[in-house]
Amino acid sequence: MLHLQSESQARWLRQVDENLPEILIDHAHCEHKAAATAMSLFGSYVDSRELTREMTVIVQEELEHFHMVLDLLERRGIPFRKLRPGDYGRRLNQLIRPHEPDRAVDRLLIAGLIEARSCERFKLLRDHVADAELRDFYGSLFESEARHHTTYVRLARLFQDHDLVRNRLEELSSAEAAIIAEGNPLPRMHS
Amino acid sequence: MLHLQSESQARWLRQVDENLPEILIDHAHCEHKAAATAMSLFGSYVDSRELTREMTVIVQEELEHFHMVLDLLERRGIPFRKLRPGDYGRRLNQLIRPHEPDRAVDRLLIAGLIEARSCERFKLLRDHVADAELRDFYGSLFESEARHHTTYVRLARLFQDHDLVRNRLEELSSAEAAIIAEGNPLPRMHS
Repeated sequence: MLHLQSESQARWLRQVDENLPEILIDHAHCEHKAAATAMSLFGSYVDSRELTREMTVIVQEELEHFHMVLDLLERRGIPFRKLRPGDYGRRLNQLIRPHEPDRAVDRLLIAGLIEARSCERFKLLRDHVADAELRDFYGSLFESEARHHTTYVRLARLFQDHDLVRNRLEELSSAEAAIIAEGNPLPRMHS
Repeated sequence: MLHLQSESQARWLRQVDENLPEILIDHAHCEHKAAATAMSLFGSYVDSRELTREMTVIVQEELEHFHMVLDLLERRGIPFRKLRPGDYGRRLNQLIRPHEPDRAVDRLLIAGLIEARSCERFKLLRDHVADAELRDFYGSLFESEARHHTTYVRLARLFQDHDLVRNRLEELSSAEAAIIAEGNPLPRMHS
């Protein structure tokens, strides 16, 4: 259902265990970036009523999640701060084809794959971390990320034939799995 | 309270009367742009909790207004479409000073002045248009724009001394009044 072609490895869970505060800070940034991505798609395809409706829901949910992570950081005395981003998003965004409607399809599918990876990792974290508050928190986020993934894939089909979208999703998810397999020394939600 | 240095002229109301459908379409775009501006400020000053909280509220309200305008267009059989923007926003944004904290102050004050001008014009429209649905609609928006104006001016004071903010607001609102006095042949919410 999530169209991912790999599972996160134990290496990433070790990064989480060794750098939990930094992972939490990065998580807040991810929620902001997810909201900003949805707002940017809203602006690019402002004449699609279906797309702007869905982006409105996603923007609101991601901003709400951002504040939930910030509250959690506050309760734990972890100061929120800017972080050097990992290269996951940048590398995925480099795959966006320049011309419409390919561009719309790629932007939506990549947004959908990032939601899918977040979803997979929230589920992993829910089952992995010892901290009860965090387990509940990750469990609560996991569902909305799955929903967002499905929305993005469905919206891509507004712009292009279903078969073309399916093939492109296959290509992009393969590239996504390769980036994840390489990993990144910076401890991040998507390292 | 709104810090505006001029009142809209009869010339603008004539543009409205002669081009109401286009003004309504532009209004929808304005609501989107207001949401996008708040999201952009959120991203630039993501480490200010007060700012991100307020921007979250504004993003949500502006997106809600966008959909309200689109529903209204739909009921009237006016197709929503992209429009060539007027030059009001572009000219105001050219006044943003490049270095922080001036940049933050200018972005917030300009966002606040745009809300103030919208507020002034919604009030004018509420009292001017004959159409009862539109009168109610403009009346309902007018309050939230006034609130957003106040929020932006208050947030500017997080970045700089109150006196400096007051002086800069005076300068920017004087520039804003000059742009409005010039007018623009394209019928827009801020022409």
